[in-house]
Amino acid sequence: MERSKISELYARAKEMDGQKVVVGGWIRTMRDMKTFGFIELNDGSGFKNLQVVYESAAIANYAEITKQNVGAALVIRGTLVCTPEGRQSVEVRAREIEVEGTSTPEYPLQKKRHSVEFLRTIAHLRPRTNLFSAAFRIRSVAAFAIHTFFQERGFVYVHTPIITGSDAEGAGEMFRVTTLSAGDPPRKEDGSVDFGKDFFGRPTNLTVSGQLGAESFALAFGNVYTFGPTFRAENSNTPRHAAEFWMIEPEIAFADLKDDMDLAEDMIRFIIKTVLEKCPDEIQFLNAFVDKELLERLTGVLHSEFARISYTRAVEILLGSGEKFEYPVSWGCDLQTEHERYLTEKHFKRPVFVTDYPKEIKAFYMRLNDDGNTVAAADLLVPGIGEIVGGSQREERLDVLEERMRELGLRPEDYWWYLDLRRYGGTRHAGFGLGFERIIMYLTGITNIRDVLPYPRTAGSAEF
Amino acid sequence: MERSKISELYARAKEMDGQKVVVGGWIRTMRDMKTFGFIELNDGSGFKNLQVVYESAAIANYAEITKQNVGAALVIRGTLVCTPEGRQSVEVRAREIEVEGTSTPEYPLQKKRHSVEFLRTIAHLRPRTNLFSAAFRIRSVAAFAIHTFFQERGFVYVHTPIITGSDAEGAGEMFRVTTLSAGDPPRKEDGSVDFGKDFFGRPTNLTVSGQLGAESFALAFGNVYTFGPTFRAENSNTPRHAAEFWMIEPEIAFADLKDDMDLAEDMIRFIIKTVLEKCPDEIQFLNAFVDKELLERLTGVLHSEFARISYTRAVEILLGSGEKFEYPVSWGCDLQTEHERYLTEKHFKRPVFVTDYPKEIKAFYMRLNDDGNTVAAADLLVPGIGEIVGGSQREERLDVLEERMRELGLRPEDYWWYLDLRRYGGTRHAGFGLGFERIIMYLTGITNIRDVLPYPRTAGSAEF
Repeated sequence: MERSKISELYARAKEMDGQKVVVGGWIRTMRDMKTFGFIELNDGSGFKNLQVVYESAAIANYAEITKQNVGAALVIRGTLVCTPEGRQSVEVRAREIEVEGTSTPEYPLQKKRHSVEFLRTIAHLRPRTNLFSAAFRIRSVAAFAIHTFFQERGFVYVHTPIITGSDAEGAGEMFRVTTLSAGDPPRKEDGSVDFGKDFFGRPTNLTVSGQLGAESFALAFGNVYTFGPTFRAENSNTPRHAAEFWMIEPEIAFADLKDDMDLAEDMIRFIIKTVLEKCPDEIQFLNAFVDKELLERLTGVLHSEFARISYTRAVEILLGSGEKFEYPVSWGCDLQTEHERYLTEKHFKRPVFVTDYPKEIKAFYMRLNDDGNTVAAADLLVPGIGEIVGGSQREERLDVLEERMRELGLRPEDYWWYLDLRRYGGTRHAGFGLGFERIIMYLTGITNIRDVLPYPRTAGSAEF
Repeated sequence: MERSKISELYARAKEMDGQKVVVGGWIRTMRDMKTFGFIELNDGSGFKNLQVVYESAAIANYAEITKQNVGAALVIRGTLVCTPEGRQSVEVRAREIEVEGTSTPEYPLQKKRHSVEFLRTIAHLRPRTNLFSAAFRIRSVAAFAIHTFFQERGFVYVHTPIITGSDAEGAGEMFRVTTLSAGDPPRKEDGSVDFGKDFFGRPTNLTVSGQLGAESFALAFGNVYTFGPTFRAENSNTPRHAAEFWMIEPEIAFADLKDDMDLAEDMIRFIIKTVLEKCPDEIQFLNAFVDKELLERLTGVLHSEFARISYTRAVEILLGSGEKFEYPVSWGCDLQTEHERYLTEKHFKRPVFVTDYPKEIKAFYMRLNDDGNTVAAADLLVPGIGEIVGGSQREERLDVLEERMRELGLRPEDYWWYLDLRRYGGTRHAGFGLGFERIIMYLTGITNIRDVLPYPRTAGSAEF
């Protein structure tokens, strides 16, 4: 007889009432009442446990079962019974219980509340808790929602490379990738390291963004997106930064900044809608135990348009706010998280795009506006997080781009292929980056990035 | 007026006949006939070009248009006309043509056949050719098919880490990831490199497999899969190996080797079916210009069951084949590509699982069979490629696993968390790895892995 998943039993309870079933799963809790007992069984197919009732009269190995520990794996044969009046809508009355794998009293996940700090030390077991079961299922559902969103719209998924031979991306500190000896690398006559002998015949790094590669594909396929890991070797120990994280970077041709913002807004709304539909139990749990305003905030976003204001207007709002900021505000300054959160949480009370930033605080590839001072960038700020999306229209004018690169001390010849995209059929185009962990934090109310990554990598920590 | 995609014009030709449309795309070819001309325009939304007819009488900037070069980007306003009698079923008669981005006579993709070797040197432009347009669209469609397959079956997608602090995976040579100075690393008193000062406080590498992490999630969620980049620092210059490639690694609990093979077989069939449905133009092109047997082979697989034989039986078949192999065959030897291809191409003429390999040639985590000599492994061999899937049931018995590790000189304490999975509710479980580029090669008939990766990374080469 085939094993049923617990999520199926809940979904098909009425039609299966009275049927024989087989389930397999792990003991979350058990209560022994001498001649009968209850087991809360979880098989990971959904958030909810299944209540299993077992009686000494019905189970041959009753004594063995009562001695089992939390965490043990069981295979249970029994009868499904609908219990609409009970706490659960369904339970299984066991006829046969097989111990598939025992546990011990030392099992670290006993029934009590554990701190997230402790649970990080047992990252291999924490997906078995309610909190991480919810977080990682939502992570999976959101990832698939993102693929679905882009694929349904005809976007081509591009795997831009992880190992990169250029430092052309130029955003922050990078990890070096090497097969050279750490202690005794080959050297040239002048004593410097001979990277010609490294695996790729040159120094290589882990990517910080797939954007430049995505642009080349957008100018062939029109609409493309990446979804892959990216890396920052920044030695910052904050709840919002990890050294390894996942990014989604769509790139659209024949499109400008407005199209880009429309796309980002549609995408965010699609992700929220999908997660609310597919993970109601998880969201309910998170709303009860992690963030009491989660559900209200997410449903609110579904039904409100995102605000769109220029950077210049944002600075005016901040200056006129009467708030005391740690970092003072003036035109030309980069917006700090405190400023971003004021705008989205207190002023607009909803997501807001801030557009047209001073060119000095943005990347070289962003399209220069006609004012000569600002660029066609758009960052999306959301309550509780701050920046979640950073996008821009790209500079498609070869001469303007080359001049901007020279201003910044970049060598155009290092970017020959990127400039080719402007030589041969360059079009208006735009794109953005969505930090995947940021959206998972937004969707779950979880405030530390370490708790939405299966095995987080941060400065000083690469356990497991 | 909103831009239509060329793929939409083909799909909705009849209902749009006679309607005004706007399209944007790149010139693939153009023919000027003095008072009128033809442009083959491609916008990347599909494989097919759109024929655009323009006349000097209708177009204000006729002279400018005739001077455009292949590769230029145009925005065209005109009328859609169904032409069922023509070579194309639809064309656009232009009323207005705007040059969005010019090209030059130096544009490398002139209308002629280019070698794949040459096209690798312009990897930023090659997606604009028929071959790579087909390869990378199929890559995208296959990736989404894989996500769809697993998500529809309730599998949870897990992002196992890319940077790993353990070399517990123990498969082949690894890339080191570091922020230490290459030429002057910090050293301890004894002169050795002080990895305690490296970014993660220890030596770290790029992952070769997400399996061990996936196992921990399978024992919480039941069914999970990974889909991410993996790395091998092997200095091999073959058409089948890249240093950076993508892998899919499902892992299923309460499941044995037969369940594992059933899953792999269903998955392969689902991918093929989806690609045949969604990419008929691409497959037709590849069948005509790359591999004349492609379509027959793929449809054949849809309708035949995969063979399943033991390693022992496979060795018997090879010994009795009368074939002269470069590597001689005997029980205990690892199967080489020539052996694998003989089995799948000549003997069975369809995909075949080979199971129950000698334990000496397989990994430590594979479940020991009752004979004490073989393990519950299953490799899937397919015509034209050889091994495409490598899977096994995992050793869930703590004592057997620890003994096997000691036999192989592995230190159980290095694997403490992996062994925990056997201490606390271990279950039968199994999984496999699918090399994503291998399946793309199988789906396209392309024989060099460099031509199915957007920007391939191989020994000595990390261009772009």
